[in-house]
Amino acid sequence: MSTNQKQAPVANGAAPQFALSSRMSTGRAMSQDVWSIFNAANLPADCINLGQGYMNFPPPQWVKEAADEALNTVAGNHYSHPKGRLRLREALRDHYSPLFGRTLDIENEILVSSGANEGQYSAWVAWLEPGDEVILFEPYFDQYLPSITFNHGVPVYVPLHPPAVLDKNQTSDDWKIDFEELRRAVTPRTKMIVVNTPHNPVGKVFSQEELQKIADVAIEHNLIVMSDEVYDGLLFDDKPHVRIANLPGMWDRTITVGSAGKSFACTGWRVGWLIGPKSLIGPTLAAQTRIVFCTNSPLQEAAAAGLEQATKRGYWKQQIDEYTERRDVLMKYFDEIGLQYSLPYGSYFVLVDISKVQIPEDYPFPETIKGRGKDFYAGWFLAQELRVSSIPVSEFYCDEHMNIGERFLRFAFCKDLDTLHKAGERLRGITKFMGQ
Amino acid sequence: MSTNQKQAPVANGAAPQFALSSRMSTGRAMSQDVWSIFNAANLPADCINLGQGYMNFPPPQWVKEAADEALNTVAGNHYSHPKGRLRLREALRDHYSPLFGRTLDIENEILVSSGANEGQYSAWVAWLEPGDEVILFEPYFDQYLPSITFNHGVPVYVPLHPPAVLDKNQTSDDWKIDFEELRRAVTPRTKMIVVNTPHNPVGKVFSQEELQKIADVAIEHNLIVMSDEVYDGLLFDDKPHVRIANLPGMWDRTITVGSAGKSFACTGWRVGWLIGPKSLIGPTLAAQTRIVFCTNSPLQEAAAAGLEQATKRGYWKQQIDEYTERRDVLMKYFDEIGLQYSLPYGSYFVLVDISKVQIPEDYPFPETIKGRGKDFYAGWFLAQELRVSSIPVSEFYCDEHMNIGERFLRFAFCKDLDTLHKAGERLRGITKFMGQ
Ligand SMILES: Cc1ncc(COP(=O)(O)O)c(C=O)c1O
Ligand SMILES: Cc1ncc(COP(=O)(O)O)c(C=O)c1O
Repeated sequence: MSTNQKQAPVANGAAPQFALSSRMSTGRAMSQDVWSIFNAANLPADCINLGQGYMNFPPPQWVKEAADEALNTVAGNHYSHPKGRLRLREALRDHYSPLFGRTLDIENEILVSSGANEGQYSAWVAWLEPGDEVILFEPYFDQYLPSITFNHGVPVYVPLHPPAVLDKNQTSDDWKIDFEELRRAVTPRTKMIVVNTPHNPVGKVFSQEELQKIADVAIEHNLIVMSDEVYDGLLFDDKPHVRIANLPGMWDRTITVGSAGKSFACTGWRVGWLIGPKSLIGPTLAAQTRIVFCTNSPLQEAAAAGLEQATKRGYWKQQIDEYTERRDVLMKYFDEIGLQYSLPYGSYFVLVDISKVQIPEDYPFPETIKGRGKDFYAGWFLAQELRVSSIPVSEFYCDEHMNIGERFLRFAFCKDLDTLHKAGERLRGITKFMGQ
Repeated sequence: MSTNQKQAPVANGAAPQFALSSRMSTGRAMSQDVWSIFNAANLPADCINLGQGYMNFPPPQWVKEAADEALNTVAGNHYSHPKGRLRLREALRDHYSPLFGRTLDIENEILVSSGANEGQYSAWVAWLEPGDEVILFEPYFDQYLPSITFNHGVPVYVPLHPPAVLDKNQTSDDWKIDFEELRRAVTPRTKMIVVNTPHNPVGKVFSQEELQKIADVAIEHNLIVMSDEVYDGLLFDDKPHVRIANLPGMWDRTITVGSAGKSFACTGWRVGWLIGPKSLIGPTLAAQTRIVFCTNSPLQEAAAAGLEQATKRGYWKQQIDEYTERRDVLMKYFDEIGLQYSLPYGSYFVLVDISKVQIPEDYPFPETIKGRGKDFYAGWFLAQELRVSSIPVSEFYCDEHMNIGERFLRFAFCKDLDTLHKAGERLRGITKFMGQ
């Protein structure tokens, strides 16, 4: 315990220098990301956080109880099988088999991960050869980019195009892929396409027709599809959730991604899952086993309890009703204010068009904002002046396409009604800064 | 939810084929590892498991209580800061600052990880350039190898040499590094040395003199040292734990690794940590943020409570007393049986020399054992015949050095006394298979 040993200077008195892996200078890995810039610590103390996508309410009591029960056993505190705990894999099988129209094999077709994020990372470790290209639709969930470049993959961007000018009746459906653009993005090095439905941050739920067109490209060029469906429990206005894995010829090439964090309001439990054919799940398991070995045990048990009981408790429907109300409360304020948005049909985000907001020319901005998209300026300004934070959407586009997104701020409505009303009241103050 | 869609055959009727990342065919990544071969499912139903290194007892009640408390809050169920929760980083600072002889900076010098394993993986992501070499002392913790090769690093092996022939008075101290061999292993591509003290599987606690010789090499060649000290709470017979980071000139080049799983008997919580200079921790945080984003929140709170209260509750000393008793109970059986071993001074493993065990020539072995080291045969045989499982040590050597380890089986004594006594009774049956 040698507390008497002190750090001595190195031979020449200077700290040693080590070459960072070159991948760390790709994919915005070391640059200040949007989460640090719009972090509570940088914003007014009483700012209402509609920026980050986590709930300000807890998971249901009956889900948490299963964590307590697991903590009271021996095995529930120790290593799980790297595939995931048996009970959770069985619960996933029972929940998802009807949704995929096939009986899922818990030994080979289901993999529990440490959050959706780590499961996706493991898939990239297993499947990407240096130089392999991965097609991302913009705006994309920002974790994808560095996860791909850390594995020496190359992201290729295909933008979702927003409606040219928003008017009251536009929705997340109006964000469109240009399928010619998609086809042009495919090269001999393309290995994967990432689809995200319901979509963060657009709130778009992809239609069967759109997914079929993506599937056609995947089949024609023999690509793997990673279908990020972490918001599959959050679809509004009876929008149907189509799973690309269910389209003809797609099961064998699709890894579908889910998350307990999104389904049960417990983003900090770090329990997610991958579902797909043995051929894709097997190597992903081998990668994951080395990265995290396994996922924490007590919260896997809790997630299992959630899946086991959710349907009979009417949880899924109740959750949709609650989120629909949250969405509608927030939208009503934007309607009143006269700010236009794309009505989201899924996930818990809404994109609001801030082109009407006029920022005083001499407003003081920190260095971290300067040179970024207009949305960074607007987001910072509103957080300071109205004390409601949001996230600039240009962060989710590559530099070249940044201008497509910078008209929008993303507001998260995974917050209780009271908070949403308070935020709405504060947002009314925007009108002072809107020219008509 | 399109349950009516069925999986259709791909165009030509065959399942699609995708090229696996080439790294998956390195580092034994896809081969059947020792854990699957010696898995409960392959062994007799009532086999006593002294193979895998997890406890058959739970963490202390007062540590678990903090998990329950966290589950009853909102924030304790949601995303933590990627660096780790403030409370845990403060608890780590308070616990480790005296041990490192410096006040640790919770913003830059401490990183909470999802188990020690994932923290180490993140460090390799941050620091390894393709082709960079990492020196591992054999026998090495088997997760290191694929974690390095997944990041296109190259492992270079330096064996610990066991005492030539064991006799009763030998200990884990007698496993020695040949420092000339270490020096010969260094090349212009060497980037890191991994040290593990107390050592899995040898139970060796490295002396200050040995660590100084390793430090000399690291300083001379400007190498990073990853010091895996996950067993730093488990040292016996008053052996002092020397931290290589405390040797002159070493702080700035050392990442020290710890694990709540080992310290508080909760391997399934997946909470670990890295401690080191800002220059090494910063990029490792950037890597980790993309791999897992953050570690699960409720069990971070529990680990914090553990560190906050352990000293005043006398937990560290009690734990050492209990493990010493466990070790001594198991050793006594080996003494009686007449099987020799290296008395471990740290960790919870003992290496037993099984050269005296004679396996009937016609004994039926499964394919997974055939062609492996003698220890694989012996371990399988003892598990089948005596119903006590252990782990063959040759798994922790590279193919070329396998013969150095194959005289030994590793037995884990992180089990309650009752189980150890039962296992000891069964192991007495070995004498039938020992020629004298
Ligand atoms: C589209 C998308 N995918 C994946 C994730 C990560 O989910 P998890 O928290 O389970 O890692 C998120 C979280 O925000 C997300 O929005
Ligand atoms: C030497 C060593 N390092 C690291 C680990 C991994 O620890 P954790 O369970 O915290 O990931 C282990 C676990 O057995 C180990 O023996």
